[in-house]
Amino acid sequence: MMNTNAPMAGSEKLTVSIIGASGYSGAELTRLLLRHPHAELEHLYAFSQAGNRFSELYPAITCDKTLEHYSGQCESDLYFLALPHGEALKLLPALEKAGKAVIDLSGDFRLRSTLEHEAFYKQTKPETACLTYGMPELFHERIIGARSISNPGCYATSILLGLAPLFLSETENRVTQVNCTAVSGISGAGRSSKTELSFSEMSENMRAYKVGIHQHTPEIMQTLGTSVTDPSFDFTFTPMIGPFTRGIYAGLTLRLEKPEQAETIESLYRDFYRTAPFVRVREQMTEVRHVVNTNFCDIHIASSSKTGSVVIVSAIDNLLKGAAGQAVQNMNLMFGFDETEGLL
Amino acid sequence: MMNTNAPMAGSEKLTVSIIGASGYSGAELTRLLLRHPHAELEHLYAFSQAGNRFSELYPAITCDKTLEHYSGQCESDLYFLALPHGEALKLLPALEKAGKAVIDLSGDFRLRSTLEHEAFYKQTKPETACLTYGMPELFHERIIGARSISNPGCYATSILLGLAPLFLSETENRVTQVNCTAVSGISGAGRSSKTELSFSEMSENMRAYKVGIHQHTPEIMQTLGTSVTDPSFDFTFTPMIGPFTRGIYAGLTLRLEKPEQAETIESLYRDFYRTAPFVRVREQMTEVRHVVNTNFCDIHIASSSKTGSVVIVSAIDNLLKGAAGQAVQNMNLMFGFDETEGLL
Amino acid sequence: MMNTNAPMAGSEKLTVSIIGASGYSGAELTRLLLRHPHAELEHLYAFSQAGNRFSELYPAITCDKTLEHYSGQCESDLYFLALPHGEALKLLPALEKAGKAVIDLSGDFRLRSTLEHEAFYKQTKPETACLTYGMPELFHERIIGARSISNPGCYATSILLGLAPLFLSETENRVTQVNCTAVSGISGAGRSSKTELSFSEMSENMRAYKVGIHQHTPEIMQTLGTSVTDPSFDFTFTPMIGPFTRGIYAGLTLRLEKPEQAETIESLYRDFYRTAPFVRVREQMTEVRHVVNTNFCDIHIASSSKTGSVVIVSAIDNLLKGAAGQAVQNMNLMFGFDETEGLL
Amino acid sequence: MMNTNAPMAGSEKLTVSIIGASGYSGAELTRLLLRHPHAELEHLYAFSQAGNRFSELYPAITCDKTLEHYSGQCESDLYFLALPHGEALKLLPALEKAGKAVIDLSGDFRLRSTLEHEAFYKQTKPETACLTYGMPELFHERIIGARSISNPGCYATSILLGLAPLFLSETENRVTQVNCTAVSGISGAGRSSKTELSFSEMSENMRAYKVGIHQHTPEIMQTLGTSVTDPSFDFTFTPMIGPFTRGIYAGLTLRLEKPEQAETIESLYRDFYRTAPFVRVREQMTEVRHVVNTNFCDIHIASSSKTGSVVIVSAIDNLLKGAAGQAVQNMNLMFGFDETEGLL
Repeated sequence: MMNTNAPMAGSEKLTVSIIGASGYSGAELTRLLLRHPHAELEHLYAFSQAGNRFSELYPAITCDKTLEHYSGQCESDLYFLALPHGEALKLLPALEKAGKAVIDLSGDFRLRSTLEHEAFYKQTKPETACLTYGMPELFHERIIGARSISNPGCYATSILLGLAPLFLSETENRVTQVNCTAVSGISGAGRSSKTELSFSEMSENMRAYKVGIHQHTPEIMQTLGTSVTDPSFDFTFTPMIGPFTRGIYAGLTLRLEKPEQAETIESLYRDFYRTAPFVRVREQMTEVRHVVNTNFCDIHIASSSKTGSVVIVSAIDNLLKGAAGQAVQNMNLMFGFDETEGLL
Repeated sequence: MMNTNAPMAGSEKLTVSIIGASGYSGAELTRLLLRHPHAELEHLYAFSQAGNRFSELYPAITCDKTLEHYSGQCESDLYFLALPHGEALKLLPALEKAGKAVIDLSGDFRLRSTLEHEAFYKQTKPETACLTYGMPELFHERIIGARSISNPGCYATSILLGLAPLFLSETENRVTQVNCTAVSGISGAGRSSKTELSFSEMSENMRAYKVGIHQHTPEIMQTLGTSVTDPSFDFTFTPMIGPFTRGIYAGLTLRLEKPEQAETIESLYRDFYRTAPFVRVREQMTEVRHVVNTNFCDIHIASSSKTGSVVIVSAIDNLLKGAAGQAVQNMNLMFGFDETEGLL
Repeated sequence: MMNTNAPMAGSEKLTVSIIGASGYSGAELTRLLLRHPHAELEHLYAFSQAGNRFSELYPAITCDKTLEHYSGQCESDLYFLALPHGEALKLLPALEKAGKAVIDLSGDFRLRSTLEHEAFYKQTKPETACLTYGMPELFHERIIGARSISNPGCYATSILLGLAPLFLSETENRVTQVNCTAVSGISGAGRSSKTELSFSEMSENMRAYKVGIHQHTPEIMQTLGTSVTDPSFDFTFTPMIGPFTRGIYAGLTLRLEKPEQAETIESLYRDFYRTAPFVRVREQMTEVRHVVNTNFCDIHIASSSKTGSVVIVSAIDNLLKGAAGQAVQNMNLMFGFDETEGLL
Repeated sequence: MMNTNAPMAGSEKLTVSIIGASGYSGAELTRLLLRHPHAELEHLYAFSQAGNRFSELYPAITCDKTLEHYSGQCESDLYFLALPHGEALKLLPALEKAGKAVIDLSGDFRLRSTLEHEAFYKQTKPETACLTYGMPELFHERIIGARSISNPGCYATSILLGLAPLFLSETENRVTQVNCTAVSGISGAGRSSKTELSFSEMSENMRAYKVGIHQHTPEIMQTLGTSVTDPSFDFTFTPMIGPFTRGIYAGLTLRLEKPEQAETIESLYRDFYRTAPFVRVREQMTEVRHVVNTNFCDIHIASSSKTGSVVIVSAIDNLLKGAAGQAVQNMNLMFGFDETEGLL
């Protein structure tokens, strides 16, 4: 597919800005974009934190910009939106009208079904509000041709990458059931001041939440070619938070129609991801620390049985492959840069 | 059932000793037994740590005893064995011959099937080596009458208590599948000097291990009335360790033959555990911190669906309800004390 | 000194209530008082949390009471006040007028100097608002005779117990300088919803704060027989928070007029604390985990030099010996119970 | 001073190898050197881990090299030695003889005084075994001209950078006393399998150690122009470990002959470090998380008093500015690269 985005001239850089740069995903975007060889980070926009220097909030990131109040500016080529759900819906029309490319990290534009959006996000949205789903390992060509991208959710990324080969490969076998138990680091809740996310409450603690009703459910189902309301397989999702800051660790327990050896499944996965620079199908057990501060998704086929059950473990850094890293990966594809540029 | 253990005279105390008092479970046993109103803690035995004062290893526990080398002593009424797998097998015969009561915290005497024992523990054992399984919520009467008890494994406790009502109640519905993903605190690996359990490797980390082959699997199956080799339902178990010291947090995803409302299941659980002082069926989501330093098992029916899937979350302190606390609860039943004595 | 508090008849219990039971210190008080053999816990009062069940906030503590709104009730014999600074000042007069005993855990009544109170707490208070300073190791007799007690601050407890023998013993040597660097667990900031105390900000982090201006400074100076404004020795205090929930770990670096062997200092400390059941002068290095969940203060004389410098390390559980545990210890003395009752 | 190291031709890269690449410092060196634009990482040498792939030990670092057994190879231009104390002493002579440049991260070559070396390291060494002390902020010119460098200790780095301006600037005031209390992350102890560094022992814990006898003491004194045996000012050092993996947080309490305003001291520091790209003198309080994963040393003048006391807080990443990062900074200076190359 042709790359419809304006090609970059040799020495010229893509100008980019971040709206919502004061949160954790915005900060990681800032860090990645500052060192990206083909992007020039122009503006960091924020709301409650506008007026503060970025480096006061995140001294570990060398950046001398001040957080500016966003009020409709649109001089950059590309805008990253890292805002609470509902906010990007308001900003996108003007940015698109001004001919700007957009990568939105919220859930606002992920779902084709407005019904499911409203059920899981408790927010209404127009029927047209759906953008190309920016998971490069699955939608490489579409992303290359897109003007605007909806960046996947963090849980959705770890779960979909752990499931995709069994659903999207040409195979005669069929997945009849998926049970996801995924533990997220606490940064997944954002830069927060909630008592229940304080160190004193979460150190040495674990807690499940939103069991069966997490908002990443519909984007998982949609991407696997089905829907929440009329699913083609039985699906459960148990999200948990654990006492660590970064990472998602997902245990995926599937049932296949016909039993399959772990080695066969591993082959299928290696084949499926053979051109994906950020997915590592590993013989060794995956661990959160293997992927923290990287854009990798590590996948290990942990077991399979004669009854057709399969356990797959997948791990990502929720702020990188689950948010800012994947967003930059999408930018790389959209603008014809090497997919790994600025990410290794 | 009659209590066959010698009844305690009013003012006389049960004399108890611990073999393997230097590990984490042994230390918790020491703490609990020192404050137990009807038990007199006589000897703390250890092997590599023999000769050291207990209080040098565990200054938070007020105890002026010295760890003694165990070489066959048997003056106490009751012996707690908190030893690595395989060691209790060697010690039990002499203790039983001397007429002593024993509560063993290892896996040595849990399984009726020597075949399964050998497959999961990689150790041979005599066919007769099986003791009453000391899970008071399920085997109350048998424990009261027992001379020797095999204390359940920590994962097995959290998983079995989370499953038992659906398996062991009179009900026409049937569980066709159970998927367990359980995260243990690192103390579950014992007082260890392994690099992979060092703070630097495990802080901000998670790791699955022994997926599908964990040695607590057969005792779970046996207790649910089936076996690993010829199971009556489909079972998977994904153990993980997470960055906390104490606790097990188990997410149990079941399939029922017929869908059931969460409320109905909750009723069944409340009913099943109505006389169990340490199981709390809760409306609120369970958390590890709710049970740490207690003998409680907290259970929450988190969701159920029209397809028959049910998610249940269960939490225990692995060193208490998962080891030392449950052992004392067993002692209480065996010797006619109040079941909660010394545990609240 | 005579115990002026009404002696407890053999079987009758002291009735106690807690105002401010929803915070961490209030919760620990609840836990301790529920198991105290001579106290009957009557009411748990709270403000924003009034109406909620205590067990919803703290499921690890077995207590079926509901948090009640406090509006001047005074039926109990003794009131524990565990409130933000400034609140106890308002409540004490009515409680005293009603003839009630009070143990206040805030800073409201610790300082004799209203000038220093106002400088460090940024709050005015009446000149008379000073109660007996409830540090049993230093003011045993006064506490026995007191009707109302001001419970010491957590930092002040760890620092004062680490310094007292050198200041308050009969000795010809003199301390010319004290430098305190003390690291507190994050629960010291209370049950909080501040972003800077969230898990994501504090895991793997440390931060000093209020260097030289911490409000526990004047009570330390006052107790050592001097004042902030005209000190008899040079004093610095660097408080820090570290990534743990409970505990204070204080490194105290002193200068003596005349050099002294560590062994000599250790003797002095052992002698000074020989009747103190909760201070342990240890040969072994102290650690936070040695005292967490206990009422102990562990002290180790870590080094002394030919120049007169001495390093002393002291550790407490900030919520127990630094708050609720010490408060119960004070209650025990005031009402003629054994000093350790309910605390071992 | 002239750069005596062979200048790099435009496109040619410096070839470098690491001896001791399997430990934490070696791994960080690997990560930094792989992305360094002017260095070509040739060999990773190890001992017990030889034969294993580097990426099995450190999957978060993208590197396809195998750890090789070191047996005297010397083809690279520069060797980094990241070995236990005592090992570099054995390897240096052959490397120097072969004309290789060396940066040693151990303590083997830091001290001019063999007497102090033997007292603190409990190892003998030849009198000549002392290399240029690689602290670029203090010895910029000497490092540029050096063939071999002794990289400073982690504590020494955080403490010396926090003290140097007051000792090494032209000023009429004089420091009469320094008390250091510094908390290190647990990775400072290396990739270890000691029980006392296990997660279960160190989570929620703190512990001081080697008080007054830490081996970084003599290099601090030597660098400040004095000695342990005949010090020109009174010095104490209390090292602690806390429950975090990376970082050192140092609280430095000084006494000046003449009192000085914090602002004046801050000016002095800003001036002293005005050309130092990795030292940030900050108005804001420093925190560990501000420097983790960076090569920065953050310094804050926290307080000063009328008595001449000053509290300074300094923070580094112990594995970067305290080890591998500083080593690469030294390489940059030695070989005429930009000082920050590969480090921002």
